Amino acid sequence: MKHVHFTDVKLEEPSEEGTKYIKVRWLISKKDGAKNFAMRIFELQSGGYSPFHKHDWEHEVFILEGNGIVKDEKAQETYKKGDVFFIPPMEYHQFINTGKKLTKFLCLIPYKK
Amino acid sequence: MKHVHFTDVKLEEPSEEGTKYIKVRWLISKKDGAKNFAMRIFELQSGGYSPFHKHDWEHEVFILEGNGIVKDEKAQETYKKGDVFFIPPMEYHQFINTGKKLTKFLCLIPYKK
Repeated sequence: MKHVHFTDVKLEEPSEEGTKYIKVRWLISKKDGAKNFAMRIFELQSGGYSPFHKHDWEHEVFILEGNGIVKDEKAQETYKKGDVFFIPPMEYHQFINTGKKLTKFLCLIPYKK
Repeated sequence: MKHVHFTDVKLEEPSEEGTKYIKVRWLISKKDGAKNFAMRIFELQSGGYSPFHKHDWEHEVFILEGNGIVKDEKAQETYKKGDVFFIPPMEYHQFINTGKKLTKFLCLIPYKK
């Protein structure tokens, strides 16, 4: 088995455009032999955001710490530690850290779509 | 999107045998439209354990809180908050809470194997 602490994994700039103050660690990926889905952790600083976008794969998200909002096309909701989000394919979404502290969240994506 | 706090989701007895003091919440599953993988949170009390077993699908695990050990066929390692485990298909594994406090961990599994 692979066993690491999340802080052992390289903190990288995300490849997407339209972001601010966000970095990612690919915790479990194809490099580890994961064939079905990948686990990433995002670290989002106060005032930062993920892109407002949609795509043809889903997200499964768990908020580890922090406070902010999640937007879709119609509305926005607040997030807090322990919140779970399932974002189906082709739904717009964006995470915005409106709090003062760092937000950390897990976001898992499929390899087979 | 689906948005819940993990404590909003029913805490259930797991279906597997060979467990002690462990319960599960299915946070994201087929019921939500998830077609590729499911997110569960396990709550493992002091002295409790998951089954010592293997199967033909992988686990992607993130330790949210607690301390204990993870065993495979050959060895055991300690786990702590923030640890990440990738357990490939057909590898024996067991989580044992050897600490005094509750352990909570996320464990994700594929639907397509």
